[in-house]
Amino acid sequence: MRKPALNIGLIGTGFMGKTHVFGFATALRVFDLPYEPVLHSVADRTPELAASAAAALGFAHGTDDWRRLIEDPEIDVIDITAPNALHKEMALAAIRAGKHVYCEKPLAPLAQDALEMALAAEAAGLKTQVGFNYLCNPMLSLAREMIAAGELGEIRGYRGIHCEDYMADASGTFSFRHDPAGGGALADIGSHALATAEYLCGPIIRVMGDCVTMIDSRPDGKGGTRPVVTDDVGRAFLRFENGATGSVEGNWIATGRKMQHDFEVYGTKGALTFSQERFNELHFYAAGDASGRRGFRRIEAGPEHSPYGLFCVAPGHQLGFNDLKAIEVAGFLRTIAGETPEPFGFRKGLGIQTLVETIQKSSAARQWLRVPQG
Amino acid sequence: MRKPALNIGLIGTGFMGKTHVFGFATALRVFDLPYEPVLHSVADRTPELAASAAAALGFAHGTDDWRRLIEDPEIDVIDITAPNALHKEMALAAIRAGKHVYCEKPLAPLAQDALEMALAAEAAGLKTQVGFNYLCNPMLSLAREMIAAGELGEIRGYRGIHCEDYMADASGTFSFRHDPAGGGALADIGSHALATAEYLCGPIIRVMGDCVTMIDSRPDGKGGTRPVVTDDVGRAFLRFENGATGSVEGNWIATGRKMQHDFEVYGTKGALTFSQERFNELHFYAAGDASGRRGFRRIEAGPEHSPYGLFCVAPGHQLGFNDLKAIEVAGFLRTIAGETPEPFGFRKGLGIQTLVETIQKSSAARQWLRVPQG
Amino acid sequence: MRKPALNIGLIGTGFMGKTHVFGFATALRVFDLPYEPVLHSVADRTPELAASAAAALGFAHGTDDWRRLIEDPEIDVIDITAPNALHKEMALAAIRAGKHVYCEKPLAPLAQDALEMALAAEAAGLKTQVGFNYLCNPMLSLAREMIAAGELGEIRGYRGIHCEDYMADASGTFSFRHDPAGGGALADIGSHALATAEYLCGPIIRVMGDCVTMIDSRPDGKGGTRPVVTDDVGRAFLRFENGATGSVEGNWIATGRKMQHDFEVYGTKGALTFSQERFNELHFYAAGDASGRRGFRRIEAGPEHSPYGLFCVAPGHQLGFNDLKAIEVAGFLRTIAGETPEPFGFRKGLGIQTLVETIQKSSAARQWLRVPQG
Amino acid sequence: MRKPALNIGLIGTGFMGKTHVFGFATALRVFDLPYEPVLHSVADRTPELAASAAAALGFAHGTDDWRRLIEDPEIDVIDITAPNALHKEMALAAIRAGKHVYCEKPLAPLAQDALEMALAAEAAGLKTQVGFNYLCNPMLSLAREMIAAGELGEIRGYRGIHCEDYMADASGTFSFRHDPAGGGALADIGSHALATAEYLCGPIIRVMGDCVTMIDSRPDGKGGTRPVVTDDVGRAFLRFENGATGSVEGNWIATGRKMQHDFEVYGTKGALTFSQERFNELHFYAAGDASGRRGFRRIEAGPEHSPYGLFCVAPGHQLGFNDLKAIEVAGFLRTIAGETPEPFGFRKGLGIQTLVETIQKSSAARQWLRVPQG
Repeated sequence: MRKPALNIGLIGTGFMGKTHVFGFATALRVFDLPYEPVLHSVADRTPELAASAAAALGFAHGTDDWRRLIEDPEIDVIDITAPNALHKEMALAAIRAGKHVYCEKPLAPLAQDALEMALAAEAAGLKTQVGFNYLCNPMLSLAREMIAAGELGEIRGYRGIHCEDYMADASGTFSFRHDPAGGGALADIGSHALATAEYLCGPIIRVMGDCVTMIDSRPDGKGGTRPVVTDDVGRAFLRFENGATGSVEGNWIATGRKMQHDFEVYGTKGALTFSQERFNELHFYAAGDASGRRGFRRIEAGPEHSPYGLFCVAPGHQLGFNDLKAIEVAGFLRTIAGETPEPFGFRKGLGIQTLVETIQKSSAARQWLRVPQG
Repeated sequence: MRKPALNIGLIGTGFMGKTHVFGFATALRVFDLPYEPVLHSVADRTPELAASAAAALGFAHGTDDWRRLIEDPEIDVIDITAPNALHKEMALAAIRAGKHVYCEKPLAPLAQDALEMALAAEAAGLKTQVGFNYLCNPMLSLAREMIAAGELGEIRGYRGIHCEDYMADASGTFSFRHDPAGGGALADIGSHALATAEYLCGPIIRVMGDCVTMIDSRPDGKGGTRPVVTDDVGRAFLRFENGATGSVEGNWIATGRKMQHDFEVYGTKGALTFSQERFNELHFYAAGDASGRRGFRRIEAGPEHSPYGLFCVAPGHQLGFNDLKAIEVAGFLRTIAGETPEPFGFRKGLGIQTLVETIQKSSAARQWLRVPQG
Repeated sequence: MRKPALNIGLIGTGFMGKTHVFGFATALRVFDLPYEPVLHSVADRTPELAASAAAALGFAHGTDDWRRLIEDPEIDVIDITAPNALHKEMALAAIRAGKHVYCEKPLAPLAQDALEMALAAEAAGLKTQVGFNYLCNPMLSLAREMIAAGELGEIRGYRGIHCEDYMADASGTFSFRHDPAGGGALADIGSHALATAEYLCGPIIRVMGDCVTMIDSRPDGKGGTRPVVTDDVGRAFLRFENGATGSVEGNWIATGRKMQHDFEVYGTKGALTFSQERFNELHFYAAGDASGRRGFRRIEAGPEHSPYGLFCVAPGHQLGFNDLKAIEVAGFLRTIAGETPEPFGFRKGLGIQTLVETIQKSSAARQWLRVPQG
Repeated sequence: MRKPALNIGLIGTGFMGKTHVFGFATALRVFDLPYEPVLHSVADRTPELAASAAAALGFAHGTDDWRRLIEDPEIDVIDITAPNALHKEMALAAIRAGKHVYCEKPLAPLAQDALEMALAAEAAGLKTQVGFNYLCNPMLSLAREMIAAGELGEIRGYRGIHCEDYMADASGTFSFRHDPAGGGALADIGSHALATAEYLCGPIIRVMGDCVTMIDSRPDGKGGTRPVVTDDVGRAFLRFENGATGSVEGNWIATGRKMQHDFEVYGTKGALTFSQERFNELHFYAAGDASGRRGFRRIEAGPEHSPYGLFCVAPGHQLGFNDLKAIEVAGFLRTIAGETPEPFGFRKGLGIQTLVETIQKSSAARQWLRVPQG
């Protein structure tokens, strides 16, 4: 029996737009989904770009008017991968049109916008998803399960980072990522580190931030320069609701680092360490192992670590980044079908945005701040 | 403008059957292919299984008669992921029917069969592909390019292995993989190590084999036991045409190893090491680096390493195993379109099969043997 | 020609006392020292313990009176490895007696004591050394040289940690390390991370501390419990004089960690990473390497990295922890002979103590503090 | 009570001579030895060199006549670190003079010489030691104990290598290491890999060798060239007495490798992997660990791994190469005192030499050979 179709309307055709398309294509084959996602329409800036994107990405239709796409009654899900500054307007329009919304992170430049979006979706009873793809890794699910099951004992300490180097070159042009509203390394990638921290250890309730700008002006692309006030490095001390303490760093000028989304979590009975640089592995220290035989175990991803087995029945073969996106897609489709709760809906996206802003404010105020809980 | 459709008929719906489907789905989205591959028909053992596989995998049709599938004039490419013992019969039928053939490795249990298959395809002017997926890794392409460009100088030494542990449990049942015709660890996974060795360093011309059976009987699945004569470990000393010497090991009882497809290659000016356990990395030692600053560089896969950039524009995000299959698929489609030569056609599959058999014969004869060149 | 003897008087025979003895023994053989260090006398708590320590460690004499040892006119250098609380009294007595002083870290429980000690030694024109042994690693010297030579460009970011788990067990008894005066993880091992940070990147001028007690009471060894107020984890944000920013963590409840004295330093042209867990390696990323060939180089310690070559003429053989202590000893003897400046004298020990206290004060006050410069 | 002195006479003052001196100095401090080793005399080629070596290394006397040193009645132990070609003559003279003999590896260029030496020592009832220092690593002792205790189950497979690159440069001068009698990579460093293999898994009873010369002539140091017939790479297939099979490689032209003395050993219940590049670690896979939690454990050396605790009471601090030599020295002194059997006496050195020669002969004959058992 054929699955009901779920028509997807995509806005934005850049890096993340393509990744979403790959995610839908893979999810469709790998998972037993409640719907068959159909690449219905894609919006881009001009009719030509839209047509070319539709052809390249496999959508049936292309349009240069994202509002029309949102209002197209055939479309069930609006998928937003446009620049951050547009997320709010697009999402609210989609919600008004009664569509479920899948939105790339960050949900919005400002927490107050994110709140508005979350409230609107909740009021409308629509399902939402924010793209924190690193959380979709089976090894992160494993880590979370191990922590929840008490395999590490009581959690005491956490260290999380997300460092890359794509802004390390001071001659790189000022972009929307440097925009004082919603920009900076902490918002852009530190947010991933924060999401992982909460995914594993639960709510962060107090923070002390340290956001620094190391490259204080950049070419404006028109022959001049433009001052930069957003952070290149955003650090924070953390207090978790469960009593653990920790720290986090987001850094986009870490020369040589391409994907250092790493964490270490220490409990009374064990510890876990992880690096996205080798994201099909989780390292586990069990204090209860026999004396002289203890050590961090390099656990390789395999079919025991759901949903790895749907991608590959044999261990050690490894998932790729786009597979994480397919897991994200599958989770959202199940949510839409009412099978599972929202894995990472707008409310959680709001939570991360709130954390980011609280850290930024704490840094500016040079004092610890309590994190408003959603 | 719409791409011409290329109708795929798949035989076999197990691990590799699914992987091929994932490969087609991903290739379609990631690459600018000369054709649009269409999942036309799938064959399985019963009408029910075929119907269910068609639904699950996204084929338009299912059939319990692989011969009918092969002869279906709508189908352009026959994709064989059935048990090895059937490869020959199926491939020859497909060739007779004028279809291009994509066949999982090993091409056939015996080299003489593989030769027959290669000759048939060549005589018919049809394109073929054998599934040596590990070769499709951009980091292996990089290694090959570096060697070809002389970045390592003259190649002197090679060490290759492919070790796993899926047969380590002696209580595992006798399977077709233990069949004296075409079975054993050397044929099953040592063949990958051999393919990589030749991919990087060129033809192997002489070998001395050491194939050993460590578990000499296994449950027959009917309450009795059955003797095993195929190898659990297959080793060989190698002589390459280019003057280098080396060794290789295939081992399916290497407790703890899930995907140790590793190599080390040493030249006069540098060296490379690689492990499939971390297959988005290649380690490169440049003897010409400054004194006191030399060391193996951990190169992480990125857009500089084609075709990584089609999957992801940012470095360090990583490809997964199924992505390698998508690269394989794309290569075959381009071959069919006449854009590129066969990346790994039946003739090369024959070459690997010949190597495997020569090593086995050498082991039995306890003497060095010259490898028949295709 | 025989070297002049330099008579050593050791106070304290525990872990560090033995390590110093190993250091003297090895330094004597490995280096061309200006003196021959002679193990003259050792002090312990009772005559019996002193006699036994003298025999076991190879000293000519043993005494239960450390004051007598200090005043023995035959002794040239007083080597203090007694509990921290006694460092000041012993060091001042040694200085009054005109002896050079080699003192284990921390120099004193409080910075004001360390200052008194530094001033006394300087006024007397005597040479001093504090035992920050990790700095004696040739790979740290290499890192420092590379940074000083501009091989990383301008330094932008630093991350340092020193985590172990020797206090992770909450049933461990209250010890002098938990004493409010001078105790805690930050003072005990975070101090090493601070010393390394300044060794590599120069003075730290402002800090924001976060010192937390996770195990708030411990058995008192007499059947009761005793409250703990010193930190189990001490973190800080850092500002360096050179404009870089960073962070540091000392943690003695990091389950599974035995010697995670690690750093990462990021500059405009390159980066270095290091772990004491593999301390014969330094990892170096050169942004100037060719495209597609960049990656962290694993530089292994060898004779190019002075003074490794004095220990072993061949690369890759590796130094051990006790060898670091021998390098420390050699440095001090050369300082006494006037050949080189003090590598890490009391003034620098005071600097670390000041940093530790400033971080602790900052944590208590919940605000950034300027670090008093010596 | 003072330990009885044991006077050492050293012949040879190069790399290994110095290492032995470091070993004696460290062993004296670290271990509770049955004797106090005294650096009595050293022999070198001229009176001046001998005097200078005595001063530099801390010997009481120097001589240019090694025969006189051997016959000096004050000397108890003759320590031979002279070129291999002289080992036999020196050792036999020492045995005739009634001295215990400590000899660097290889024991002799030819197994027949080694046999003569072993028989002479045994007939005289003297103790002997051959310098296979890598075996003295506590992590190798741990591996051996784990295997002996059945923690890996029945051993099935072994892979050992010892690769370096000190002969990779073809412009390096012909040396005694290239001498057809006793030279070549297999003898020089492959012998270490063989010693480790037997140390862990017991006697090797059959071999198939593959010894290749890649650089077939070298400068003779006098402006001409000299042909090289010894191997640059020596490989072998192995059969162990316990039923396991394996392979080994010695290679001194492995560009980039400084100390790749590695092994992997696979059993029915677990596996171990090790690299001398990180020799304070042993990696252990326990097949009995819980599903989804299995992985190679990185066990770091600590006091549980005797005799690490004598060097350092805290885990993770690490031993260095010279510490391994101290452990070797301590073992020999205990043997001389009758406390323990010979850890690696001439009989075992003969065994390794026999293995090396059998592999070389096998390679030349191109056939499997049985290894003569001592």
